[in-house]
Amino acid sequence: MLQLEQLYGLIDREASQLKMPEEPSGLYAPLQYMMDMGGKRLRPRLCLVSYNLFSDDIGKHILTPALALEVFHNFTLIHDDIMDKADIRRGVPTVHRKWDDNTAILSGDTMCVWAFRMMEQAPGEQLGRVLGLFTRTALQVCEGQQYDMDFETRNEVTLDEYIKMIGLKTSVLLACSSAIGAVIAGAEDYQSKALYDFGYKLGLAFQIQDDWLDSFGDEKTFGKKIGSDILNNKKTWLLIKCRELAHHKDSASRANASDVTDSDVSYLNTLNKLLEMPLERGAQKIAAVQDFYHSLGVDSLAEQAVSSYYSEAMASLRNIGLTPQQIKRMESIATSLVKRRR
Amino acid sequence: MLQLEQLYGLIDREASQLKMPEEPSGLYAPLQYMMDMGGKRLRPRLCLVSYNLFSDDIGKHILTPALALEVFHNFTLIHDDIMDKADIRRGVPTVHRKWDDNTAILSGDTMCVWAFRMMEQAPGEQLGRVLGLFTRTALQVCEGQQYDMDFETRNEVTLDEYIKMIGLKTSVLLACSSAIGAVIAGAEDYQSKALYDFGYKLGLAFQIQDDWLDSFGDEKTFGKKIGSDILNNKKTWLLIKCRELAHHKDSASRANASDVTDSDVSYLNTLNKLLEMPLERGAQKIAAVQDFYHSLGVDSLAEQAVSSYYSEAMASLRNIGLTPQQIKRMESIATSLVKRRR
Repeated sequence: MLQLEQLYGLIDREASQLKMPEEPSGLYAPLQYMMDMGGKRLRPRLCLVSYNLFSDDIGKHILTPALALEVFHNFTLIHDDIMDKADIRRGVPTVHRKWDDNTAILSGDTMCVWAFRMMEQAPGEQLGRVLGLFTRTALQVCEGQQYDMDFETRNEVTLDEYIKMIGLKTSVLLACSSAIGAVIAGAEDYQSKALYDFGYKLGLAFQIQDDWLDSFGDEKTFGKKIGSDILNNKKTWLLIKCRELAHHKDSASRANASDVTDSDVSYLNTLNKLLEMPLERGAQKIAAVQDFYHSLGVDSLAEQAVSSYYSEAMASLRNIGLTPQQIKRMESIATSLVKRRR
Repeated sequence: MLQLEQLYGLIDREASQLKMPEEPSGLYAPLQYMMDMGGKRLRPRLCLVSYNLFSDDIGKHILTPALALEVFHNFTLIHDDIMDKADIRRGVPTVHRKWDDNTAILSGDTMCVWAFRMMEQAPGEQLGRVLGLFTRTALQVCEGQQYDMDFETRNEVTLDEYIKMIGLKTSVLLACSSAIGAVIAGAEDYQSKALYDFGYKLGLAFQIQDDWLDSFGDEKTFGKKIGSDILNNKKTWLLIKCRELAHHKDSASRANASDVTDSDVSYLNTLNKLLEMPLERGAQKIAAVQDFYHSLGVDSLAEQAVSSYYSEAMASLRNIGLTPQQIKRMESIATSLVKRRR
């Protein structure tokens, strides 16, 4: 087993060597721009770490497919940013802002195909399985984005629906990354399935942590403004859980009260009024919603959910023949993903 | 060898059986809509006809990859229609008009991935070669679309550049369709390469014929308004050739004249004035440009170019061991593509 830092270094070197063709520049310059933005490269890292559990023979046959996952992820970001009308990504203008929508559509398409091209470099013996998994995952990521957009216009979203959505939009690609590493290393089916589950549960923990950070993180370490989800009434784990708790509390107090409860003082009404606060009172709205979350304990419930999915992720790795040292390695990558402050 | 009608029937049946998942409906309904639009299904037809030159064993292993080509083609149409702001496709509203841009972006992405999923059903033995060819082709199609968009804002485009662009945007997918059929049937390398060339040259003939039809076709049989390329000053084979001829004629008359030629009566100036005619005088502009094309013989030069590429396409099939009956079959599919009136 190589050092974690060595593995990450290999990924970074491979990424820096990824050069797009020069022409047509209108097509490839935005791709190069996107790849040069950097980022944490979580997916290729996870893929390579998972591979290295079963094999020390590191070469193009694993590095290229590992990086394909990052290229695919970047493709989804380019198109998501058009759909979300996002201006900034990793501190610089998004592709559709720096160029235009048409460029972002076509460069994104090219990047998607490029990801397949890189994934097709997986060894012939595992090619069918690797591509089957990758392609199914790619479809699920599209489905996840669709559900996310659907949620924006819906009044009620349950926590189960939310978990299903982030499962598709975020988790399956982490799961696929982790599983593909194992498959290419020649691991047994039950081992690659366990690594899939590990990545999936880790993805859920990761996303809920992301929701928590957006409302309760430290602006300095998080690197983004705190509260943008609150300002946009985004249906995050926190808001959905909060609505659920408010509803339960109202029902309980109605059941206990002999007379009719005044609906104006119900928890749900309080929440709805907070959500209706105008944009001009943004700072006030953020503070008020944070307080309301605190009062119902939503923030610590989110932290519990993160811990619980984290534990489930680690539990997936039991009984697949990993050494204590290997388990520790997986724990450290899981921790870096979940117990992060940025 | 099966009858051509039988082969086409198999493609149509396979296409009609292609059912998208129900949920999320916002994602899959537009895909189903696009596939149900029909169309000529040229690419799967070509793929299957090419396959049937070498094998009579027709099943899912060829029908699914053949249809993948149509799904991929439809994906490019969905995204091209957003970029071109097109309202109508095959007589019905385009996806981004019937729904919206975001839906068209995400449904298009899904369709692209879906095409890969279907192509991955190619037999394991040929999977690497088939996917290698398909993926390279997919990238080239994106490059072709980029060059096409680049041309819109450029003043001068040469005929060589135009041929390169339609080669990428249109021909390579027909070439790939024809070659993949041969590869999956287990044809030799030189045979599948010949079929690639066949499809490529056929594609050039097809596109120039399309340019000709848009300016000189019969509205009733063509099924679209005649002259939209003229109205939009689209840099088609006709306009580029016309500009080239006008330039040559002006140079020649300047060389012959002892005194300075009056630039106001030059061919290029006449052409430029026609191109500047306002949209309100659309019908007049179409008639005037048609006349100008006639006067320089552009229309018959286009027909000659179509015939010449058609002959080159047929010549590619020499010496690859096809029977006269098989050559005749390929001639009939080539003719249907090129000598069409719609």
